[in-house]
Amino acid sequence: MIAACIMAGGQGERFWPASRRARPKQFLPLLDGRSPLQETVARLDSLVPPEHTYVVTTEAYADQVMEQLPQLPAQNVILEPVGRNTAACIGLAAVVMAQRLGRDATMVVLPSDHWVRPVKAFQQVLASAIKAAQSDRWLVTLGIRPSRPETGYGYIRHSHERLTFEGLPAHPVEAFVEKPDRARAQRYLSDGNYLWNAGIFIWQVGVILEELRQHMPQVYEPLAALQDQVDTPQFWTAVRRIYPSLPSISIDYGVMERARRILVFPCSFAWDDLGSWPALARVFPTDAAGNLTRGKVVLEDVGGSIVHSSGKLIAALGVQDLVIVETEDAILVCDRARAQELRRLVGRIAEEGYTAYL
Amino acid sequence: MIAACIMAGGQGERFWPASRRARPKQFLPLLDGRSPLQETVARLDSLVPPEHTYVVTTEAYADQVMEQLPQLPAQNVILEPVGRNTAACIGLAAVVMAQRLGRDATMVVLPSDHWVRPVKAFQQVLASAIKAAQSDRWLVTLGIRPSRPETGYGYIRHSHERLTFEGLPAHPVEAFVEKPDRARAQRYLSDGNYLWNAGIFIWQVGVILEELRQHMPQVYEPLAALQDQVDTPQFWTAVRRIYPSLPSISIDYGVMERARRILVFPCSFAWDDLGSWPALARVFPTDAAGNLTRGKVVLEDVGGSIVHSSGKLIAALGVQDLVIVETEDAILVCDRARAQELRRLVGRIAEEGYTAYL
Repeated sequence: MIAACIMAGGQGERFWPASRRARPKQFLPLLDGRSPLQETVARLDSLVPPEHTYVVTTEAYADQVMEQLPQLPAQNVILEPVGRNTAACIGLAAVVMAQRLGRDATMVVLPSDHWVRPVKAFQQVLASAIKAAQSDRWLVTLGIRPSRPETGYGYIRHSHERLTFEGLPAHPVEAFVEKPDRARAQRYLSDGNYLWNAGIFIWQVGVILEELRQHMPQVYEPLAALQDQVDTPQFWTAVRRIYPSLPSISIDYGVMERARRILVFPCSFAWDDLGSWPALARVFPTDAAGNLTRGKVVLEDVGGSIVHSSGKLIAALGVQDLVIVETEDAILVCDRARAQELRRLVGRIAEEGYTAYL
Repeated sequence: MIAACIMAGGQGERFWPASRRARPKQFLPLLDGRSPLQETVARLDSLVPPEHTYVVTTEAYADQVMEQLPQLPAQNVILEPVGRNTAACIGLAAVVMAQRLGRDATMVVLPSDHWVRPVKAFQQVLASAIKAAQSDRWLVTLGIRPSRPETGYGYIRHSHERLTFEGLPAHPVEAFVEKPDRARAQRYLSDGNYLWNAGIFIWQVGVILEELRQHMPQVYEPLAALQDQVDTPQFWTAVRRIYPSLPSISIDYGVMERARRILVFPCSFAWDDLGSWPALARVFPTDAAGNLTRGKVVLEDVGGSIVHSSGKLIAALGVQDLVIVETEDAILVCDRARAQELRRLVGRIAEEGYTAYL
């Protein structure tokens, strides 16, 4: 029995003006018409059927999840009353799955806003990872082989010890490492034992609940106490009552950095966390000058830029490495190298009273 | 008797996307709601009454002229069947004025797309220039004291000889000089005897007609032959017949570079030819970071930029020296230093088939 837990409660401002508080990036049709959430579910095709695919999100996004994923049973959309980071999110889903599917079910935890190609390669590793999680109670994760000294991701350091599942190698994890500075990221890249932490986890429901009990009782106890109310009329009322007081801690920090017996599968497929607009130029082919354009765009002596029109003609002359995005009511012009700082700009927009644009 | 001849037939693409073939810059509400054409007429207030204010334009712009200047008699809008540069334009107006007002009338020739502040200072020099034109048959022009080594303007070199009209100094002109290169422009700036050619001329109608007869008979003869048909039903038909075959030559090249007895008044008022978007940042006050903004604009770490929203919120982050302009159907993003090359971009837009945006 395999079930997926897709985490879709993130808010993210780094795709402003396309992303808004009411419509964060996992719901945006960024990937040639499909949203990252829809791609995430499609990527599980053949491994997890819709009736065992769960999405955890906040109440504000429930309608968008159901609209984008009509194949999912409504009861598989798990609503957090408020966001409480990934440990609580995974704990809540694990409790629901434990009650419905049993503690032996295998749980695949996936962010809803990432990109992967080719999908076949992902599915092959995931199938092996599931096997590993089912045998011998491993906490399993997928680690992406770094292709650049990225300072925006966490890393996983693994040992040289090598296990094999269905022909694919996996290594015991020595440490989960936080986002490094540039020099350290360069070292990780050349070292060979460091992988990007993609936030993808595979484990048995009973195994993660046991880990939460050990390392995060303040998350585990209130949730576990509700397990026998799952699928009763009282359950969501009870969740609403206890959830706001849960600590807001990531599963990486709360469990993975403390647990033993973690196994990582090195992955060589192309992966991106779609962290901000420039990510699209990694994900889609660019023209000879390094430009990625969508919609009505005319460029003269422009390079390295992402230019996205939603209706008006965007014409640019003599500029380099910009992000230019038009949406229905707003226009962004941003230095590509500073797209990570978009949150500051969004803060400024709020300060200046343009709240309708947030 | 003083009459104004305002030349408003220019096409200009350097304010794209606000300017279009059907609506060039002289008609755009660039100056806090008023168009350069409207400002040009307003600037003549107290010196030239509306009934003696003439506008020469092409047929395509006739409606816009009459709409923007309802105070003008319809017969004062002189329509060129096609554009034939300033010599023909001025010749045509002079012939009409000679017939209606007589050859002794003083004709003030003004471009319709420039900016001047303060208006009082302009009016004071113009009044003296009119006096000079009325006495002793001078060809009179206004020359702007250069404030930077501008390579985009023509220059006027004057002699040290000094005349005075109503207390204001004027000098005989030695030469009309074409747009210089950078080094030469720097020399002109420090020399002290060079002024910017603002394309403003004051002369008696009979005087300019005589100059045209001498230096440009190919323009003069066909037009002068029509003088006694002015205000008859045949006149415009005749103009339509002969005008296309007139040579397309500027008054500067055709007359001013050859004539003697030209007088220039050095002017110290602020003047700008509004040549392209960056001109607006010379004309209007900018913020501490050198930005000029209009409409809904939010800037974070942006400097030296002109940002003009017509409806959508424009938010920019970490960019310098850009021109960002949104109009009803298009968006321009351009390096400020290359705004003069906008014509190339407009050409590219045409090539790519977006003809509706030209």
